[in-house]
Amino acid sequence: MKTLIKGAVVVPMTAVDGARYFTGSVAIRGNRIALVTDDDRPDDRRREEQWRAENPDAEVIDGRGKLVMPGLINTHTHVAMTLMRNMADDIPLMEWLHERVWPFESRLSADDIAVGARLGMAEMLLGGTTTMVDMYWHEAAVARAACEMGIRAVLCPSFVDGERMEEFERDLPETLAVAAGCDRLSVRPAPHAAYSCSAENLRRAVELAREHGLGLTIHLSETLDEQRIIRERHGCTPTEYLRDLGVFDVPTIAAHCVHVSDGDMEILRAHGVTVAHNPQSNMKLASGAAPVARMLAAGLDVSLGTDGACSNNDLDMWDEMRSASLLGKLTAGDPAVMPAWEILRMATAKGARAIGMEGSLGVVAEGALADLVVLDIDKPHWCPGNDPVAALVYSAGAGDVESVFVDGRRIVSGGRLSVEGVDTADLMRRASETTDKVLSFI
Amino acid sequence: MKTLIKGAVVVPMTAVDGARYFTGSVAIRGNRIALVTDDDRPDDRRREEQWRAENPDAEVIDGRGKLVMPGLINTHTHVAMTLMRNMADDIPLMEWLHERVWPFESRLSADDIAVGARLGMAEMLLGGTTTMVDMYWHEAAVARAACEMGIRAVLCPSFVDGERMEEFERDLPETLAVAAGCDRLSVRPAPHAAYSCSAENLRRAVELAREHGLGLTIHLSETLDEQRIIRERHGCTPTEYLRDLGVFDVPTIAAHCVHVSDGDMEILRAHGVTVAHNPQSNMKLASGAAPVARMLAAGLDVSLGTDGACSNNDLDMWDEMRSASLLGKLTAGDPAVMPAWEILRMATAKGARAIGMEGSLGVVAEGALADLVVLDIDKPHWCPGNDPVAALVYSAGAGDVESVFVDGRRIVSGGRLSVEGVDTADLMRRASETTDKVLSFI
Repeated sequence: MKTLIKGAVVVPMTAVDGARYFTGSVAIRGNRIALVTDDDRPDDRRREEQWRAENPDAEVIDGRGKLVMPGLINTHTHVAMTLMRNMADDIPLMEWLHERVWPFESRLSADDIAVGARLGMAEMLLGGTTTMVDMYWHEAAVARAACEMGIRAVLCPSFVDGERMEEFERDLPETLAVAAGCDRLSVRPAPHAAYSCSAENLRRAVELAREHGLGLTIHLSETLDEQRIIRERHGCTPTEYLRDLGVFDVPTIAAHCVHVSDGDMEILRAHGVTVAHNPQSNMKLASGAAPVARMLAAGLDVSLGTDGACSNNDLDMWDEMRSASLLGKLTAGDPAVMPAWEILRMATAKGARAIGMEGSLGVVAEGALADLVVLDIDKPHWCPGNDPVAALVYSAGAGDVESVFVDGRRIVSGGRLSVEGVDTADLMRRASETTDKVLSFI
Repeated sequence: MKTLIKGAVVVPMTAVDGARYFTGSVAIRGNRIALVTDDDRPDDRRREEQWRAENPDAEVIDGRGKLVMPGLINTHTHVAMTLMRNMADDIPLMEWLHERVWPFESRLSADDIAVGARLGMAEMLLGGTTTMVDMYWHEAAVARAACEMGIRAVLCPSFVDGERMEEFERDLPETLAVAAGCDRLSVRPAPHAAYSCSAENLRRAVELAREHGLGLTIHLSETLDEQRIIRERHGCTPTEYLRDLGVFDVPTIAAHCVHVSDGDMEILRAHGVTVAHNPQSNMKLASGAAPVARMLAAGLDVSLGTDGACSNNDLDMWDEMRSASLLGKLTAGDPAVMPAWEILRMATAKGARAIGMEGSLGVVAEGALADLVVLDIDKPHWCPGNDPVAALVYSAGAGDVESVFVDGRRIVSGGRLSVEGVDTADLMRRASETTDKVLSFI
């Protein structure tokens, strides 16, 4: 598979002090980016000509009116929860959990979860998200779905104390086995949270992560209730508690971190924990506003996530980027913080760093994995083209996504899913039937 | 012109206690909605059959996989500011105003403003916004552009003290003359704000509004600076000050109202002032979060606006609805406030009420004006179809808009502008050239 996207606006996410975008070409060979050239550089133009001569069979895509950037990386979601989309809105948190989410989830089989996962992956791919970090039960089923759908994924088998812990002990090795057969997949154990998992079970997750050479994913300081419970039980913050248990001694993604003190931030920074920020979910559930501008100033790594579709209600990273910037400015009382460039890094290069793939993912660079999004920017809301980086954060939308490449394969084309053996209408019908079936039991 | 949209999900925005959506048909004849039928009602099915027999020449649109709702009403924007889109982001407010916005605006001719206005109207129409309340200088030029582009508009010639006041005295009658020639247009004088207009000039605006039987539009309590200035000058809040001057004695739309006390809210309610809430602009400029849940509880009318594209950076009402709900929940600390239904009303029926067109606009009802949006909902992010009202606020996007009717004319079709004599590519090229020209002077 060889492709050359020619004459597009390229936003490579590699610039530190240099140009953040340029007009040029991007070539894909196999699952890697083979060439990135800037039309303003004579050397680059020569290299492109040479590449075309050496690869006369490459498909050439006219990039005029288009923008090429790295695929978006969603570092916190529960993809199967798409089954609960628009099902439980505008109600108090306890009613949401106890009367809607948990009764529904308790009735989901592994097959149901696979159906919801396929729907969510279709949505993500169509919206330009090429990698997801997914946390749920029956992740082996999600892993098989990811393998089939062509998305890149970190599968995080999750548990709370009780039966889910036993399921987790079966799910983790099964998920690892599926991932071993698909290059795009990796695995991380995911204790649900400090308040829902015993110290023994949290230590068990760390032990398993060490044994298999994996990272961890966990919810952290999402609500004030969590802060209160851990304070009452252990006399400290959830961050201090997890640090003392050794959780942060393996590479960790901590989702939410809405209520973290300066001391907590220093712990997270010192241990290289990545914060997965989920602004829309935090706002919708009125959990609070994570102090992200302060986190960035303190040198923390922050990436972005959508959380599940039951608290968002979509898996749209464009929305999430915009909300992250706007909420950050409001919270800090300063329109200059959380600039577009930093937000875009959170959704690309920082997401890659969060999953241990810095440099090989989340950038448009020669030799990096070919996970790319091509946007149609020949539209009024992209005009005038004053600053493509600002446009990506403040005025782009999922509806602008024209093509998506994952691991070198073009799996969205003309705004439609083009994965062999995958029928979007069928995915949707099965998801609706599954939701109806589960709701009929409640 | 006769059209029948058959078998779609209809969200009419007319329900009080009844069904908020149903599957049915909507017919258009001339510039009015001729028929609204619910497929579950035998009487309605008979009425539809009869209408088809009486109107055999009507174009029939297959509504399966589609949703029909009222066109969105953007009650606060400065549409020509699209020229400044993505031009001045992530900088302190005073730098934004003094070094970017004002120098740019001071160089805009009436022709430039018309170019920017056409671009913004194209964006709004493509995104399902069928009515705008626009506030700027040279509104006669904006009025001519609106007449040409097919959008419905309330043109609000604006002024601050000094030269702009003289321009306003010429602009208002000229805008009234243009509006007199186009049914879709109306006019309101728009003093900029309590701090930027003298008492004499504010009274002059009220006098002119009375003379011509018009309402007013004004910025109110957008920033803490405004509160401080009015407190220092007049010893009261901006709301109290404008009330004392008689501004609220004519029907008024007050944009922003970020910093309003309980007393201010009572004044606004008692005078029937509509608050135009602009959550994304308020967040992006770090102005604050308007207490909208409290306003609604106090019985105020609240509508929605995008503000200009220089502080948003688009004119997308879907985004704005989502932000209004999420920000409202976060601000109130309660996920149950600002429910989807109320948000959707703010963007439709309440917007119509704000401009004095309650009942005849912002609803899908027989006899109402045919300003309609048809969305393609046969997409993964619309699945499962648990609640179309929640979906419209929490997971819909401008990319879902398939067709748009204004005053009975289909002016967006298949996601593309179809206004006779209007070429989208040409609009965009001229806007880019205008921005480049103005920037070259600064």
